[in-house]
Amino acid sequence: MTDGVPDVDLDTVRREGLLAARGAEPAQHDGTGRVDISFRVDTGPDAPPTQRNVRVPPGVTVFDAGSWNGIAIDSTCGGHGTCHKCKVRVEGGSPITRHDVRTFTADQIADGWRLACLVQATRDLEVDVPPLTTRPKAATVGVGRQVILRPALQKRYVELEEPTLADQRTDLDRLTDAITDLELTADLAVLRRLPMVLRQADFKVTAVIVDESLIDVEPGDTTDQRYAIAFDLGTTTVVATLLDLGTGTPVSVASMLNKQQPFGADVITRISATMMDPDTLGRLQDAAGATLAELADQVCREGGVDPATVYEVAVAGNATMTALALGIDPEPLGVAPFVMSTAHPPTVLAADIGLSLHPRARAALFPALGAYVGGDIVAGMLATGMDRDKRTRLFIDVGTNCEIVLSDGDTILSTAAPAGPAFEGGAIRCGMRAADGAIETVQLDDGVTLGVIGDVEPRGLCGSGLVDAVSELVRTGLLDSSGRFVPEHVAAEKVPALAPRLTRVGEERVFLLHQPTPDTPAAECVYLSQRDVRELQFAKAAISTGWSLLLEELGLEQRDVQQVLLAGSFGSYLSPAAAVRIGLVPTLPVLRIVAAGNVAGEGAKMALLSVRERAGAAALLEEVKYVELSDRPDFNDAFVEQLAFGG
Amino acid sequence: MTDGVPDVDLDTVRREGLLAARGAEPAQHDGTGRVDISFRVDTGPDAPPTQRNVRVPPGVTVFDAGSWNGIAIDSTCGGHGTCHKCKVRVEGGSPITRHDVRTFTADQIADGWRLACLVQATRDLEVDVPPLTTRPKAATVGVGRQVILRPALQKRYVELEEPTLADQRTDLDRLTDAITDLELTADLAVLRRLPMVLRQADFKVTAVIVDESLIDVEPGDTTDQRYAIAFDLGTTTVVATLLDLGTGTPVSVASMLNKQQPFGADVITRISATMMDPDTLGRLQDAAGATLAELADQVCREGGVDPATVYEVAVAGNATMTALALGIDPEPLGVAPFVMSTAHPPTVLAADIGLSLHPRARAALFPALGAYVGGDIVAGMLATGMDRDKRTRLFIDVGTNCEIVLSDGDTILSTAAPAGPAFEGGAIRCGMRAADGAIETVQLDDGVTLGVIGDVEPRGLCGSGLVDAVSELVRTGLLDSSGRFVPEHVAAEKVPALAPRLTRVGEERVFLLHQPTPDTPAAECVYLSQRDVRELQFAKAAISTGWSLLLEELGLEQRDVQQVLLAGSFGSYLSPAAAVRIGLVPTLPVLRIVAAGNVAGEGAKMALLSVRERAGAAALLEEVKYVELSDRPDFNDAFVEQLAFGG
Repeated sequence: MTDGVPDVDLDTVRREGLLAARGAEPAQHDGTGRVDISFRVDTGPDAPPTQRNVRVPPGVTVFDAGSWNGIAIDSTCGGHGTCHKCKVRVEGGSPITRHDVRTFTADQIADGWRLACLVQATRDLEVDVPPLTTRPKAATVGVGRQVILRPALQKRYVELEEPTLADQRTDLDRLTDAITDLELTADLAVLRRLPMVLRQADFKVTAVIVDESLIDVEPGDTTDQRYAIAFDLGTTTVVATLLDLGTGTPVSVASMLNKQQPFGADVITRISATMMDPDTLGRLQDAAGATLAELADQVCREGGVDPATVYEVAVAGNATMTALALGIDPEPLGVAPFVMSTAHPPTVLAADIGLSLHPRARAALFPALGAYVGGDIVAGMLATGMDRDKRTRLFIDVGTNCEIVLSDGDTILSTAAPAGPAFEGGAIRCGMRAADGAIETVQLDDGVTLGVIGDVEPRGLCGSGLVDAVSELVRTGLLDSSGRFVPEHVAAEKVPALAPRLTRVGEERVFLLHQPTPDTPAAECVYLSQRDVRELQFAKAAISTGWSLLLEELGLEQRDVQQVLLAGSFGSYLSPAAAVRIGLVPTLPVLRIVAAGNVAGEGAKMALLSVRERAGAAALLEEVKYVELSDRPDFNDAFVEQLAFGG
Repeated sequence: MTDGVPDVDLDTVRREGLLAARGAEPAQHDGTGRVDISFRVDTGPDAPPTQRNVRVPPGVTVFDAGSWNGIAIDSTCGGHGTCHKCKVRVEGGSPITRHDVRTFTADQIADGWRLACLVQATRDLEVDVPPLTTRPKAATVGVGRQVILRPALQKRYVELEEPTLADQRTDLDRLTDAITDLELTADLAVLRRLPMVLRQADFKVTAVIVDESLIDVEPGDTTDQRYAIAFDLGTTTVVATLLDLGTGTPVSVASMLNKQQPFGADVITRISATMMDPDTLGRLQDAAGATLAELADQVCREGGVDPATVYEVAVAGNATMTALALGIDPEPLGVAPFVMSTAHPPTVLAADIGLSLHPRARAALFPALGAYVGGDIVAGMLATGMDRDKRTRLFIDVGTNCEIVLSDGDTILSTAAPAGPAFEGGAIRCGMRAADGAIETVQLDDGVTLGVIGDVEPRGLCGSGLVDAVSELVRTGLLDSSGRFVPEHVAAEKVPALAPRLTRVGEERVFLLHQPTPDTPAAECVYLSQRDVRELQFAKAAISTGWSLLLEELGLEQRDVQQVLLAGSFGSYLSPAAAVRIGLVPTLPVLRIVAAGNVAGEGAKMALLSVRERAGAAALLEEVKYVELSDRPDFNDAFVEQLAFGG
């Protein structure tokens, strides 16, 4: 089996069952670096194909890579290789699975046709996506979760009898009598419009319904216009996905930095800001609203969708982001004993969180498990099916606050670990966010090979680059297992080619990652310092202490974990191999470590597409046990044990 | 039996059962005129007695006269003579009932002590009201309806455990866990305050709850401050009663003209105004809000109550007033086939209808049976127990639109009759509202005896004066049964003393009611014209056609009606005898005709005091059948038949 076009005898394939289905480990990648996928999407005979380039960690399936980036690919089975619908053509082909053999002719296979859900991107790919053949009744979102479409938002077109003296039913009764399967209640604002709209439209109208609330009545048949926006409201980055609720497909995606950034990089500094000045809460609320509003404008503009046809939004954010967006005092979240005002935020109007969509659009905010295991994690659990998978799985959302969920297929535990800002480039000398110029992958051998976002001159080191750099330094022996740079003479002996890069800035020992010219002084290079390594050690120890104690609670060993899901904008871009090497995740084969993508955003999409999934999110609060680490007597011992790098 | 202090042998009284209990016909009044009751209310040892004068039609009980005017008298039985608690002292005494005999000593009876619910005011009275002895758990409102106190508004004082790392329940869970009998949901606004209030008040707080919505959390114990306002939102007059929900007693009462008056005197002209100019709906809504707000301010000021402790209001208004207060387009109410937007207005914030009370105070608006049998009538049915009384009863709310309800103790029918503006002084030459200077009673014999509101120089004729005047002119023979003034020579023959008053203004024949001086020209006098009589004839015919057809529907005769309830600000002040004589009500003994008072306002009070009664109002919509008169083929014949006065 090669990465090129295989010269394949299909009978042999069938007979020997050589080809792996998803879930096994077919690909040969080593869990490091990045791959680029270039999608060429055929949108039908009336429009030219559109081109979209995305960048994902190796091992992500083409289907997921498309899904995460708003590229719709046919599917009804949820990416399990059974519906045989997610057909794409991979330029240059890819490994063949038994499902491909059943789906395609030999000619098609030779031409590169594959099922997208079974193609793991282990190299840069060019992919042709054919037009959608069906308006799907189900959509695939999250990590291979298939969702039957049953959005909270419904539109019903009705043609009503006009009133007479013999039939003086009220306008509302006339309408609701025509929609017998729902117990509708009407907002005052709808009642204000109802008499006029019914009469102007000759009693042919579309009822706009969220859950069982009638939020509008529109003249004529508008059932084909129904949109919603899923927000991942991160402390750092906010992502919006505009969804067509009729098809379940994403229309457009946009992301930007949270406008609360000037108030502090992490939740604690923002909470502190509200404690200093009583006006700050309002300003943070406004900043959250402005962020969501700007993204909503952008996805509507890019999708060519009238904002007034967006009737619902779902917001997945951590407990502090959720409180601030709602204008709820976050102070008790920031000080022991870390208490939320409520685990279940009330359903509010989208306008209440700053959005100008349909005037009575609803906003559903995800419930939270605890002050530090928030709605974003509940959404992530939904998207990854943590409560529906019988495998032993570990979910880690790496960030300033790191949330960890462990399930043995029966019991689900969660906790939070205060990792600090290292993974977001904070407290790191040359640290920066994952933006253009950030080193995101590092490979050491005879020289230094850097992957840089935007393919520009390196300007600094982002979280995944930091993990890669430390991992490579440990592997090459330039860092010892206690996290100390080895003496210069040891370096010169072990890795002579790299030893000159081990130098000093001021008193502190550093390793130069990028030296623009041989003459550039060390202080002006991009480097990793001894203190940076310590920061990372503390961060990773906090996290590994978290999952170690959860494993202990369930009587499990590291090797029992069948899958590690790395979530969040940072976690998804972490090199699995590096994560294992520095001990951020349990010591496991790299292919058990899966970049799960923006699972908070995926969960928000699921909540919009399915009331059943939304109820599932609420149910998680009953199912998942929160383990508070900060008052455990064994925490400090475990933490110290976890400081070292590997064995 | 006399009206004075009786020289009574109690044994004889008991033995002979001479004294009547309520419901029989004890008093000797003839159903005409007015009585004044002067209440001297003892408010306890720390304050001087307060003096209140009220003016009611004869036959109203002292208890009802007090209740309608916000004067609290002890009672637990609902005015049925069984609790023996509503003790008052009537200056000069009044007829003695067997219940008085059981309640008071002979000395007390001789001193004028009576049970207020059994004293019918047949003459002017001075009444001493002792201080309330109990905080009643039940209150008497409406027409002898006793209501067990169970308001939708509740306050619960709780002292909560402070959170710890071992008890990280959310603030909301901590609170709701302490209130186990309700499934509380919290407004966003409450969640915004909750963290701060709990911590500032050391977790000792009062939950403010309407139905199962947590609308506020207040520091400390505020359970003794809970108020509500009942509004009778009339087309002409708006009445507000501030209620103490802890005791069920009224604190203060105020009334004023509806500020929508400049847009038209009746609902049709106001609806028309909205059809001419699209801005008018907003202005009518604002005017309704301003009226309610001014009254709310006044009752709070007079009651010494902080408006922020008023958490709920109930509003009883006709369908048009309700729609306008909510800003709902009323146009379909004004044109055939007369359709409401909804029969059940949604519960809104009091702020939505212009009120500045507690910021999350709720407003409950009464549901309506039809476009012309609105929430005011549903409230009136609640207050009069139309659905709970086995007697055959006729309820008539006299006004521009006259609503009629007939119950035979089993089936309840309702209809509306367009009576026109005559009863409100409109379209009557010397017509005016029931304000100072209005003639409200008329008696003809050798001269003209007028009752004038405010005891000032007569300026005009209000509705009850109009009915009285026509009734007396028919009785004396100056008007024939067809409603024509008799020829002058016939007048001179029949009533020589009054004949000179039968003269002309221009071409039209008139009867002079008030001639300031013998030289005052007829046109400058207060008079009743031939055309005025015609207006009244049409108005009364519309009404009597309404109840005639309802009687016919149930196969009943006029004499089968056991009680006629005259409701509304006008109906309550109509002379029963005159109403019978002109045929406005069925031909019955006057004592079966009861002034029911402001039953819409009473119904609104009941809805605030009892969730059960409020549910009863909603249930009425299922029980009562609305009969549309305007498309009945027999309407015109019946109408013509009813034009004549008596036989």
